[in-house]
Amino acid sequence: MSWIDVPGFHAAAPFGPQTLPYGLVRVDDRWTPAVRVGDHVLPLRGLAGALGPRLAGLVSEDSLDPLLAREAAIWRELRERLQELTGGSTAPRGARLISLDEVRSALPFTVGDYVDFYSSRHHAENVGRILRPDSAPLLPNWTHLPVGYHGRSGTVVVSGTDVVRPHGQRRPPGAELPVFGPSTRLDIEAEVGFVCGGPVGGRLSTAEAEEHVFGVVLVNDWSARDIQAWEYQPLGPFLGKSFATSIAGWITPLAAFDHARVSPPAPPHRLLDYLVEDRQAGLDLRLAVSWNGTVVTRPRFAEMSWSFAQQLAHLSVNGATVRPGDLFASGTVSGPLRSERGSFLELSWGGAEPVELAGGARRTFLEDGDSVVVTATAPGPEGSVIGLAEVAGTIRPAASA
Amino acid sequence: MSWIDVPGFHAAAPFGPQTLPYGLVRVDDRWTPAVRVGDHVLPLRGLAGALGPRLAGLVSEDSLDPLLAREAAIWRELRERLQELTGGSTAPRGARLISLDEVRSALPFTVGDYVDFYSSRHHAENVGRILRPDSAPLLPNWTHLPVGYHGRSGTVVVSGTDVVRPHGQRRPPGAELPVFGPSTRLDIEAEVGFVCGGPVGGRLSTAEAEEHVFGVVLVNDWSARDIQAWEYQPLGPFLGKSFATSIAGWITPLAAFDHARVSPPAPPHRLLDYLVEDRQAGLDLRLAVSWNGTVVTRPRFAEMSWSFAQQLAHLSVNGATVRPGDLFASGTVSGPLRSERGSFLELSWGGAEPVELAGGARRTFLEDGDSVVVTATAPGPEGSVIGLAEVAGTIRPAASA
Repeated sequence: MSWIDVPGFHAAAPFGPQTLPYGLVRVDDRWTPAVRVGDHVLPLRGLAGALGPRLAGLVSEDSLDPLLAREAAIWRELRERLQELTGGSTAPRGARLISLDEVRSALPFTVGDYVDFYSSRHHAENVGRILRPDSAPLLPNWTHLPVGYHGRSGTVVVSGTDVVRPHGQRRPPGAELPVFGPSTRLDIEAEVGFVCGGPVGGRLSTAEAEEHVFGVVLVNDWSARDIQAWEYQPLGPFLGKSFATSIAGWITPLAAFDHARVSPPAPPHRLLDYLVEDRQAGLDLRLAVSWNGTVVTRPRFAEMSWSFAQQLAHLSVNGATVRPGDLFASGTVSGPLRSERGSFLELSWGGAEPVELAGGARRTFLEDGDSVVVTATAPGPEGSVIGLAEVAGTIRPAASA
Repeated sequence: MSWIDVPGFHAAAPFGPQTLPYGLVRVDDRWTPAVRVGDHVLPLRGLAGALGPRLAGLVSEDSLDPLLAREAAIWRELRERLQELTGGSTAPRGARLISLDEVRSALPFTVGDYVDFYSSRHHAENVGRILRPDSAPLLPNWTHLPVGYHGRSGTVVVSGTDVVRPHGQRRPPGAELPVFGPSTRLDIEAEVGFVCGGPVGGRLSTAEAEEHVFGVVLVNDWSARDIQAWEYQPLGPFLGKSFATSIAGWITPLAAFDHARVSPPAPPHRLLDYLVEDRQAGLDLRLAVSWNGTVVTRPRFAEMSWSFAQQLAHLSVNGATVRPGDLFASGTVSGPLRSERGSFLELSWGGAEPVELAGGARRTFLEDGDSVVVTATAPGPEGSVIGLAEVAGTIRPAASA
């Protein structure tokens, strides 16, 4: 029996001892790395004695950056030590448990480059059908490489940060000229993100890639569809995405997902060698998106066509370095069913089919005051559940023009 | 008569007392901020006494980050003090002059987000004609907003860094399937970059934007055209650009360009209000690109359709923050004449018209061992010349597959 006797710290709950995600919380007027245990947090800065100087030095700053800069073997060592400490019958010296409700969280690491992929075939096809109805939904390159682009790392924000409706240019249907104003088609994209760490890498094989992935976070890639539609050719999404990207405040270590491995859908043809992968490189994550409290869709990450190892191998195949703190996201997670679509653009089929919420409200895109929460779980060892912490956000009205 | 009696430190030379660009050099086994004076550098870390503690504190670290984090008024104050010190008849205590040839340079600041615009109408039209010959060269949005996208900040490198030919996927002309290998169409893009500083900003007007621009650097946005052509739809350039972006090692302060102001070409129609600008927002920079020693093109920055103030106002109009260290580049600088095209794609018209170099060599795209150097000057006060330091790079063969 663990000394940690708080609600939700057991194997059947997402934040039991099998999960132990890392975050950053405010305690005694300082930021400190912490692990989440059920509905409480365990700050790590106070555990220097129990962790020993070497491990304690990695979690004594006001971010996880020193830990991310180390190699995967050290991450495993720290995780094992924390599993011992949280599983023991007596509290280690200096241990404190604080209710999640009573602490503030912050972005736990310095975001390097942020890359967003587009790895759900269902999403890519849905968007193609909605936005380019006159051409083939999937472009010819899509099945040969994980399509992606760089996003804005400076506007990655932690879960709970309000999102202000962005201003921008849009061209109304049928109009010749663009107009300026608050976005009228504000959307979400439910995604899974990967936080990189380890030595600065050159080209990585799919086998090596996992050694550079510290952990997993849920991502909401807020998207202004009207701004995006007008601006995105020929250089891709820009202001339609760059106003805010929310990530969960807790990073679940990749090691927690050993029992959630699945094989991604088979590619429709042989891949070029550097993208071939024989292992179970996918993750069986089940997402749930709630809109003002109503769960409106349940995308399954196992449906994704490109694994995170393939994404990282592709990203670095041209020699581009991967740094600690680099964040890459999967792209919208959408399945074949309507009830598995990971964006409101898809769920409302371009605004044509409203979504009904509890209480009878109907929605196509986000209205001011709306809140969206994305959560996910995965199978853990011995029937346990691994949790990904929520990524939540509420829409605030546009600033005055 | 200045105490600085070194070649090139006079008003008719690009790095005279009217310019004083900032860089980072290695002296006595430490990195120190420095200003460039003719063909020498003046390290600033030794000048604490002459600068006073407040200004010295901004240039005593191993990067320009502390200086960039301050506001424009402080930048002006430091520049004025350095003009006094370098113009005086006696050397301030602690001053050393070191030949440029004898010091190493490094990236002088931490790159935040890197955004690349596409603001030369001539470049956009040329690329459209070459890559999309069956459609209108300019897309409908181009005249209404400064098109841009986010690049990879982690692979921004300082001038002089070798560039390894990237591997990647390309689809040969007429082929159905892509192949993998070293890029066969490796190119440059001669650009002008702007380094941001000041308090983290929200939405900036065109008038406010200049207060957030610390200085100007030349940029070479190396581009693998074959990789880019296959990957770029629908989310824009990715691996075709992300292997390396070179910037000059010396940042010329924006204040040095007061006498180089020009009005950009008039837009073809009225712009939306947030992009309207009445001031002389352009800069009269004359670029020169040499390929293995032969000057092959002389693009003029005054031809650019979108000013850096418009770019920054657009970039932030959706509420996206601008941080110190953010870097944004103009996009390829191309003029209406063949002798003013800023990329080899354009200069060789897609590889169809080889460029002749001194000695009779002919080139379309870059070969291993080739070197490219971009330089620029602008008019300064009283007939002087303002310099932008060179951005140089040499192509190394691809790594083994």
